[in-house]
Amino acid sequence: MPPFGLLHVRAWVSVFSQLLRPSGLVCIREVHFHSQVSEAVLTSQLKPHQEKSNFIIKTPKGTRDLSPQQMVVREKILDMVVGCFKRHGAKRLDTPAFELKEMLTEKYGEDSGLIYDLKDQGGELLSLRYDLTVPFARYLAMNKVKKMKRYQVGKVWRRESPTIVQGRYREFCQCDFDIAGQFDPMIPDAECLKIMCEILSGLQLGDFLIKVNDRRILDGLLAVCGVPESKFHAICSSIDKLDKISWNDVRHEMVAKKGLAPEVADRIGDYVQCHGGVSLVEEMFQDSRLSQNKQALEGLGDLKLLFEYLTLFGIAEKISFDLSLARGLDYYTGVIYEAVLLQTPAQAEESFNTSGQKIRTTETQVFVATPQKNFLHERLKLISELWDAGIKAELLYKNNPKLLTQLHYCEHMGIPLVVIIGEQELKEGVIKLRSVASREEVAIKRENLVAEIQKTLSES
Amino acid sequence: MPPFGLLHVRAWVSVFSQLLRPSGLVCIREVHFHSQVSEAVLTSQLKPHQEKSNFIIKTPKGTRDLSPQQMVVREKILDMVVGCFKRHGAKRLDTPAFELKEMLTEKYGEDSGLIYDLKDQGGELLSLRYDLTVPFARYLAMNKVKKMKRYQVGKVWRRESPTIVQGRYREFCQCDFDIAGQFDPMIPDAECLKIMCEILSGLQLGDFLIKVNDRRILDGLLAVCGVPESKFHAICSSIDKLDKISWNDVRHEMVAKKGLAPEVADRIGDYVQCHGGVSLVEEMFQDSRLSQNKQALEGLGDLKLLFEYLTLFGIAEKISFDLSLARGLDYYTGVIYEAVLLQTPAQAEESFNTSGQKIRTTETQVFVATPQKNFLHERLKLISELWDAGIKAELLYKNNPKLLTQLHYCEHMGIPLVVIIGEQELKEGVIKLRSVASREEVAIKRENLVAEIQKTLSES
Repeated sequence: MPPFGLLHVRAWVSVFSQLLRPSGLVCIREVHFHSQVSEAVLTSQLKPHQEKSNFIIKTPKGTRDLSPQQMVVREKILDMVVGCFKRHGAKRLDTPAFELKEMLTEKYGEDSGLIYDLKDQGGELLSLRYDLTVPFARYLAMNKVKKMKRYQVGKVWRRESPTIVQGRYREFCQCDFDIAGQFDPMIPDAECLKIMCEILSGLQLGDFLIKVNDRRILDGLLAVCGVPESKFHAICSSIDKLDKISWNDVRHEMVAKKGLAPEVADRIGDYVQCHGGVSLVEEMFQDSRLSQNKQALEGLGDLKLLFEYLTLFGIAEKISFDLSLARGLDYYTGVIYEAVLLQTPAQAEESFNTSGQKIRTTETQVFVATPQKNFLHERLKLISELWDAGIKAELLYKNNPKLLTQLHYCEHMGIPLVVIIGEQELKEGVIKLRSVASREEVAIKRENLVAEIQKTLSES
Repeated sequence: MPPFGLLHVRAWVSVFSQLLRPSGLVCIREVHFHSQVSEAVLTSQLKPHQEKSNFIIKTPKGTRDLSPQQMVVREKILDMVVGCFKRHGAKRLDTPAFELKEMLTEKYGEDSGLIYDLKDQGGELLSLRYDLTVPFARYLAMNKVKKMKRYQVGKVWRRESPTIVQGRYREFCQCDFDIAGQFDPMIPDAECLKIMCEILSGLQLGDFLIKVNDRRILDGLLAVCGVPESKFHAICSSIDKLDKISWNDVRHEMVAKKGLAPEVADRIGDYVQCHGGVSLVEEMFQDSRLSQNKQALEGLGDLKLLFEYLTLFGIAEKISFDLSLARGLDYYTGVIYEAVLLQTPAQAEESFNTSGQKIRTTETQVFVATPQKNFLHERLKLISELWDAGIKAELLYKNNPKLLTQLHYCEHMGIPLVVIIGEQELKEGVIKLRSVASREEVAIKRENLVAEIQKTLSES
């Protein structure tokens, strides 16, 4: 690889609240820009790595870069998700990538081993956040906030293994919407389910279903089936596998590995293989065993109310009461839900991909070109006017590029318009405006340049 | 602190490229939603920490949460910055938060001690990224990309000490715009400076100046003044302090601490206290000593060309050739630049704050209220219609809230419109639309609800 120039502008943006001022006031404290050309320095520093030893230039295990193509898709998805969160009146929060290690300890049950710890370099012991939930709870406790509807979008890190083969990355993005506070039952839950439906419909991934259960029903169920309380956790984690393995395999795990009596397992099996709509909730209310359990009855009561609200929201048919849904983390205590796509990823992918259409990675509207030599100054003046008018514009960083090279660049990048300036145009006080698709060219007056381009862009 | 409910929807969005397919294809592989009410679990888990030992609920040293108010300001800033990057045709890239430790080693000179390492938990040795430049260079090398105009926005981590007092955080956000590739000289540099001007003007932080220098001029200057090459680095770092301490103090450091002969320091002083426009470049060309140095002449030639382009861009008067600008990191080799605000942060803050105006932290357009009991069902049906029409709407999560509480909420949150439904309205097939500011109410037909609201919103 030949040396290359690396030229960059970097802005550090630092926003902080003025603690001594009335709340709500914020200001920018620092904006740093610095930039440089570093001819080949970084690459030459990377190169010796490759030559000596077995060092390979790669991203860490379980992580990846997102290319410009992937970023376009991700931005679209995030815009849609965040748009939905805003439609529901949520405020945005951000928290640091790492927390005090002690803050994360004991929050994730058996998953705690997957937390990335930072090296002890003197000072506090830190860990990368494992989700956005514990940081949110920490924020609420720290600021004594009792009520908050917030969303947060950010990366979280989990040392999953094996990783990418199953599509699980060690670094991934979570979009959380939480409603914290004490409210009348099931109204916020119903809104959360509405949000899930809006997002999944909006993403156009194909048909989906949202499984709903309640930890109190699950606990009540285990109790009435005769599972000792000490085994609740272990048995729950077996039940949670029912979406991946058969009941026979789950039953075997319960009996052979977790020491459950076969008849207890069979009783559990009668329940956890059930799923359905509000009628299943009614049915479980009548169940002779389950209706004896106070916890289960509370859970069922809430689910009934939930279905009432979901019907008003017009989404009841998207929701399935599924007694096998358990969820892994320790902090789930009441209603739990999880969405599943009813298509395979391959099918969903197809519907998302709009038949392999080429994705533009830039938004450039106008390219500034010349057919002649020694027109760099004119091109620079011209493009500067476009930028100042808010028009997205590019040119080639060459003193004397060939016209064909410039037009090819536009076609390759999907830039719709070209502004052409040459000797003839300069003499006549015009510029040529060319449509890349139709190859039509019109001469417009130099002084009307911006207005004409804005008109053309607004019409297309 | 009483227990509180925590209810949440979380979406994991996982986007990845299908490597076996033509480039440009991307798809969503997984969208996970899961949600739960975890009544007080997290807070009760946080509580014992506070009670036992000295454990305080806090963010790690040098980091902070961004509150909803701060996030509103940050989003505005980032939108402006990213808008500018897009106007200049850049593609967006994302890289992992951490890199192989070996990748970061020896890239940052004496700053390398500030890198956060991850704990060795088996597997690769990792470090949090220190900037977005080295990951970009790694991306280019790994993918054998020779030319790319990209931007990246993301957090970086530096174990700075002391920290917050000087407004330096250990976690902060960088917005990088880089042009990688080999081009005719100074055209991309001029564009980078144009971008800096556009962003700083756009942020309305008050007057600013961009200092420009070239590492080749600096090196040439040190050579002709008689600094031994082994001391270049140390002397550069002294010179770089001239924006913070006086020339006398810098001179003292050079002579007393870094062992420079006094007359050599004085010769340096003659140069590094100079700053000016293109005329200073011309002056340096004529300088009897500096014009003897090949490197310095190259740097001066480029700066002259740069000023030519900056004049065409109409920003030459914002740029100051400053012979004291050195920049810290080792990877700077050619033209370097850095912007400074000419106002104090306090003044800039004022101009940014638009006189302490209250910042809205949500975008809610309509609130759904009722003056009567037992109208939850009607409110839910109504708000569902609004959400489905893309209208940003909220209600209180209470079965029977008081009308006054509901109206107060709107005033407090700055929600402009209220939709009111009660017995009378239900009977007449209308709803009342109330302006929070004017307290005016109009009755509109129930079936025209969405259309009327959209009309009212578009007019305001």
